[in-house]
Amino acid sequence: MRAEIITIGDELLIGQVVDTNSTFMAQELNKIGVEIYQVTSVHDDGDHIRRAVSEALDRVDIVITTGGLGPTKDDITKHVLCDFFGATLVPSEEVKQHVHNLYKYRPEVLNRLTETQWLVPDKCTVLENRVGSAPLMVFEHAGKLLFSLPGVPQEMEIAMREQVMPYLAEHRPTNETIIHRTIQVTGIPESALAIHIEQWEDALPSTMHLAYLPKDGIIRLRLSGYFDKNDTTAEQQIDTQMAHLKTLVAEWLIATDDKPLEVIVGELLKAKHATIATAESCTGGKLAALLNKHAGSSDFYKGSVIAYSNEVKANVLKVRQEYLDQFGAVSEQVVVSMAYGVKQVLKTDYSIATSGVAGPSGGTKDKPVGTVWIAVATPEAVYSELLHLNGSRDQITTRACTKALTKMIKYLQD
Amino acid sequence: MRAEIITIGDELLIGQVVDTNSTFMAQELNKIGVEIYQVTSVHDDGDHIRRAVSEALDRVDIVITTGGLGPTKDDITKHVLCDFFGATLVPSEEVKQHVHNLYKYRPEVLNRLTETQWLVPDKCTVLENRVGSAPLMVFEHAGKLLFSLPGVPQEMEIAMREQVMPYLAEHRPTNETIIHRTIQVTGIPESALAIHIEQWEDALPSTMHLAYLPKDGIIRLRLSGYFDKNDTTAEQQIDTQMAHLKTLVAEWLIATDDKPLEVIVGELLKAKHATIATAESCTGGKLAALLNKHAGSSDFYKGSVIAYSNEVKANVLKVRQEYLDQFGAVSEQVVVSMAYGVKQVLKTDYSIATSGVAGPSGGTKDKPVGTVWIAVATPEAVYSELLHLNGSRDQITTRACTKALTKMIKYLQD
Repeated sequence: MRAEIITIGDELLIGQVVDTNSTFMAQELNKIGVEIYQVTSVHDDGDHIRRAVSEALDRVDIVITTGGLGPTKDDITKHVLCDFFGATLVPSEEVKQHVHNLYKYRPEVLNRLTETQWLVPDKCTVLENRVGSAPLMVFEHAGKLLFSLPGVPQEMEIAMREQVMPYLAEHRPTNETIIHRTIQVTGIPESALAIHIEQWEDALPSTMHLAYLPKDGIIRLRLSGYFDKNDTTAEQQIDTQMAHLKTLVAEWLIATDDKPLEVIVGELLKAKHATIATAESCTGGKLAALLNKHAGSSDFYKGSVIAYSNEVKANVLKVRQEYLDQFGAVSEQVVVSMAYGVKQVLKTDYSIATSGVAGPSGGTKDKPVGTVWIAVATPEAVYSELLHLNGSRDQITTRACTKALTKMIKYLQD
Repeated sequence: MRAEIITIGDELLIGQVVDTNSTFMAQELNKIGVEIYQVTSVHDDGDHIRRAVSEALDRVDIVITTGGLGPTKDDITKHVLCDFFGATLVPSEEVKQHVHNLYKYRPEVLNRLTETQWLVPDKCTVLENRVGSAPLMVFEHAGKLLFSLPGVPQEMEIAMREQVMPYLAEHRPTNETIIHRTIQVTGIPESALAIHIEQWEDALPSTMHLAYLPKDGIIRLRLSGYFDKNDTTAEQQIDTQMAHLKTLVAEWLIATDDKPLEVIVGELLKAKHATIATAESCTGGKLAALLNKHAGSSDFYKGSVIAYSNEVKANVLKVRQEYLDQFGAVSEQVVVSMAYGVKQVLKTDYSIATSGVAGPSGGTKDKPVGTVWIAVATPEAVYSELLHLNGSRDQITTRACTKALTKMIKYLQD
């Protein structure tokens, strides 16, 4: 079964907001075998929304729109859908009660604009928006379904999980399943990798498809397989192919799934009952934030020192002043001392340190923008590496984190 | 003049990758008065790409595609466009030389797949892709333009800035200009705000349009105006309206432009020649990473201590052990001590501290998930606040950062 997503809002088309909603929805729908055929971002404009909805309903069985359900004038999705499906807006006592409950402790939110939130089209099913005032609407049209969800990511996510997915499971059970498997490799160019695994790739059955996703020095290889839901050998079929692929790329394999590198680091640390800290200069807290992003990080993460200034490097991380004076902050001596220092000060088993020139200014002839030293400390030793990275400030710091985490994984796996 | 963006790649439609390319391209094109009418994400599939290109060229004057230009089998954009425009692939000596130069020090990248990169359609103009091997292509079709760019964000960004924008300025100069102005407010519900400014909004000229963009407790109000490029009063017209709006919302105004809060904090600190540090528990480095995200942060940012464990809070930040024992880590006493401690240890003028339960586990009856204490220290005093936040771990920590930065701005402006 195929679906399309239509994201509604001028903010998406002037580059003010990145569309993360369709990413989340695609992930959820893929899990139950619903393939996203197309994502379309359109303006808060009646004709535009109508055309996009009409075309999508021609192509696929399920259409989900997000956005344009707020109480303000620029939000028109409800009216446009009402018109499109030939419905009339009528007050809903249920939605009214819900909105009153929602704002029980914030009566100032209840006003004549909020009141429009409990007007709903008479030709739709209303699902509860547990965390917001905009009603979730489901329209049936010639055997097809259209869901209208809010554009605020938090409301949309809860609506998808608690309402849309159960509704689809009940009303449009699918006979298909899509299985994705991803591994991550590093240290080989994309084209060389493609040649290396060409024979295997060419011999894949027509129901499987390989994609190359290079990013920040890592190539993710994703194998997707399309199966009948009742095919009990589906998992086995795709895993057999993946096992072969893993053998072929063993030399460059960094992860056997699509987990972020920081999650892999966390899992390896937890398995060892070990702890980690970071000492960051150029990455400025990005490594710490990555390691803490996911639930359960307090099991292995104790803390970090973000040492942007030399003073902090010397006073808190106990980097020797003569190293800073003689070799500069961006040097092997300093980054190794930082890794060692933070491990001592925060009493952890492992640590990662970074010191570099993230740019755009601050580069010199000897140490141009993109020069980054990283160090990884284990209970036994400290390992350092000099990187020459390209790109913007954000890309340089992101790649430094990727490299540092990759290095950490290597020593944790040893 | 209107444009459309077509992003090509299965990874966008299975939710593996967030489309940040179209955000960047929309921003760039808006600056020269080109309005993005629609963004469409399609599969690496010939028929799908052809239909999307054909429909977009029917609607607008400029179409930009990204993605599908890699050397591997799953990348087919070049072949599809060649076919669509009735062109033939021919070798380009120029692109060949460029690719050889690009991989001068990495000869292992030159192989028979890379060789396909210097095959280009004979009916297109080839622009230089300075940082990658895929040629940038421009097709002319019935007076309209189609650009084909790589999907790797770094390559696409450089291609847009260095090739597409100058090409458009020369070949399709526009007579229009679009001006956006954004302010940020906090502390008033969206609907109450809309009612408060309704009279002003209704009286706007038809060439101007207001949008409400609520996110993480902040509402951005964006006023967009469409003008003739030669209208010398355009800036003045929109600024006059904005001045009126600012007066109306003065009570809730937090920023008079669209700058991220951390940038505003940085500018206010620089103006005072003052420095800042952060002491983070639940936000785990997110505040530090935000403050360091932008160039020039070393002017005001000295460092941070990410104190996830109580041990680090006590040993490094000098939080009194009896506070930790008596009140717990998530308490006013501890967060105030953290803010004070980091200011002392890192010798800064200002500091921000956070301590809370980010979830999903770790909540108790007294301190459920979402309970976050924040503190802001100035040279004179420490101010704390208790937050009750909703959402996922990521949302809770993001909102805590937003609240903390908002509070810091308040005291920096005083």
